[in-house]
Amino acid sequence: MANILFHKLAILGPGLIGSSIAHAARRAGVVGQIVAHSRSAATRAEAVSIGVFDAVTDTAAEAVADADLVILCVPVGACGPVAQEIAPALKQGAILSDVGSVKAAIVNAVLPHVPTGVHFVPGHPIAGTEHSGPLNGFAALFDKRWCILTPLADQDPAAAEKLTAFWEALGADVELMDVAHHDRVLAITSHIPHLFAYNIVGTAANLADVTESEVIEFSAGGFRDFTRIAASDPTMWRDVFLNNKEAVLELLALFQKDLKELTDAIEAGDGDTLFNHFSRTRKIRTEIVDAGQETAAPDFGRSHTPKDDE
Amino acid sequence: MANILFHKLAILGPGLIGSSIAHAARRAGVVGQIVAHSRSAATRAEAVSIGVFDAVTDTAAEAVADADLVILCVPVGACGPVAQEIAPALKQGAILSDVGSVKAAIVNAVLPHVPTGVHFVPGHPIAGTEHSGPLNGFAALFDKRWCILTPLADQDPAAAEKLTAFWEALGADVELMDVAHHDRVLAITSHIPHLFAYNIVGTAANLADVTESEVIEFSAGGFRDFTRIAASDPTMWRDVFLNNKEAVLELLALFQKDLKELTDAIEAGDGDTLFNHFSRTRKIRTEIVDAGQETAAPDFGRSHTPKDDE
Repeated sequence: MANILFHKLAILGPGLIGSSIAHAARRAGVVGQIVAHSRSAATRAEAVSIGVFDAVTDTAAEAVADADLVILCVPVGACGPVAQEIAPALKQGAILSDVGSVKAAIVNAVLPHVPTGVHFVPGHPIAGTEHSGPLNGFAALFDKRWCILTPLADQDPAAAEKLTAFWEALGADVELMDVAHHDRVLAITSHIPHLFAYNIVGTAANLADVTESEVIEFSAGGFRDFTRIAASDPTMWRDVFLNNKEAVLELLALFQKDLKELTDAIEAGDGDTLFNHFSRTRKIRTEIVDAGQETAAPDFGRSHTPKDDE
Repeated sequence: MANILFHKLAILGPGLIGSSIAHAARRAGVVGQIVAHSRSAATRAEAVSIGVFDAVTDTAAEAVADADLVILCVPVGACGPVAQEIAPALKQGAILSDVGSVKAAIVNAVLPHVPTGVHFVPGHPIAGTEHSGPLNGFAALFDKRWCILTPLADQDPAAAEKLTAFWEALGADVELMDVAHHDRVLAITSHIPHLFAYNIVGTAANLADVTESEVIEFSAGGFRDFTRIAASDPTMWRDVFLNNKEAVLELLALFQKDLKELTDAIEAGDGDTLFNHFSRTRKIRTEIVDAGQETAAPDFGRSHTPKDDE
């Protein structure tokens, strides 16, 4: 039988990530009660309907009362206000964590509200799909995905250890990282890719001489790969870019510099530069597949003839 | 029983596309003999090993002798030289086609070599995977994918009709299009997405303060989606950019303009602009799924726990 790590888990924001944590914690058998709260009545109703929560409360304070693990699963910009709201209701000795895609801004917004005796351990599971909301959560979402924790220097290390055990029980591999380094790594592996995807999909949809229906029809030539992450939750991503501005803008300048080199090579008809560049990038994918972070199946394992999927 | 449309089909370049055409034509039962030729001895040996070709010849001239359909499946830059080489061996009344990702450059390179009495109908199936070579071809590759034909004004329309019937028998939907329009549509739906993917993957792999192993480990945050098309055949893509330079560079300027607007919004902390942009792009994916050009499954239908795929 699995060890109970936390008697009561509170999920604030039972969306894709929050509800998946609940499913995975149930599957692992490492929590007693799981209670959720959402500010939205519609989300609360959906959270009730999936049957994974013992209770879905009308207020955040009710959800966190007596909880020994509280996880903020709200958009980055909402973490500070929610932390402020729940602070008086947090139990002494509780662990407070989050799942936000940026860490420095969340630490700055949340830490001032954390009461003495409550252990704040920021976290970020690198997992998700393009779908949002409680109905889209599932227990396997974190299996063999990384969860980064960025423990703070002045907090009790035992809290980070216990949270590590929790995420490992949910199927994840845990890596500890410095807050600022997290934000640079994620700017590269996640934030800038999303920005480019939003850019490509948005621009293509608004061209004068190519119709939107042509963009859609002929999307299998590459475009459709970008539409998946450009279909991600707009509130979440607005907050990511507002809250990881420096790292994103600084690193974006490097991408622009390299894009200019590629563009110059096209303009100059310099085939060798293009070939060398395009050869190097091929091996990166092999390494991602070998690291277990991607399917080895061609075309992402998309079922051929997608029309028949429906 | 299926109608034989062509007694002898010659595939010049039995790579991913060429060998998939052979598999699909066999499945459909619309050709008699299928013969292939590759300049590379290694590719010829692989082409023999897949068992779909009746013969794999040492010269292009042998392959096309008596063929009533000849399809150039070589990189864009090789189409002109191969057309010149085979011209004296082409049968009167034969249809000559290709599968290249750009059309104007191929028409300019091939048409001067096409003998009177041979019908040149340029073509481009919008299908593929990130894998190359004869071993990776399969019969379902073109099922419900689009194949664009760009018939030329001074050619016999009956040839385009017969080639349309051939591609439909292979499972594709056929659309006729003007050469120049094809090159602009594909610049948007395929070439520029590939350029951005190559750019993102290449830049990320060469950063000073984030290691390549971190880029690989945390790639599930979005980056890995870009690595699929950045793993495509480098020779093919070098030739695409060298041969669709004008459309790519002109349209790239529009993407850069929009990227600047997004970057300015991040810099200015303008959340509304970001939110509005990110909301618009979400519906494009739904439309691509509805059009049967993409799987409706979350995360491309990637099997969760990819490590277990192997």
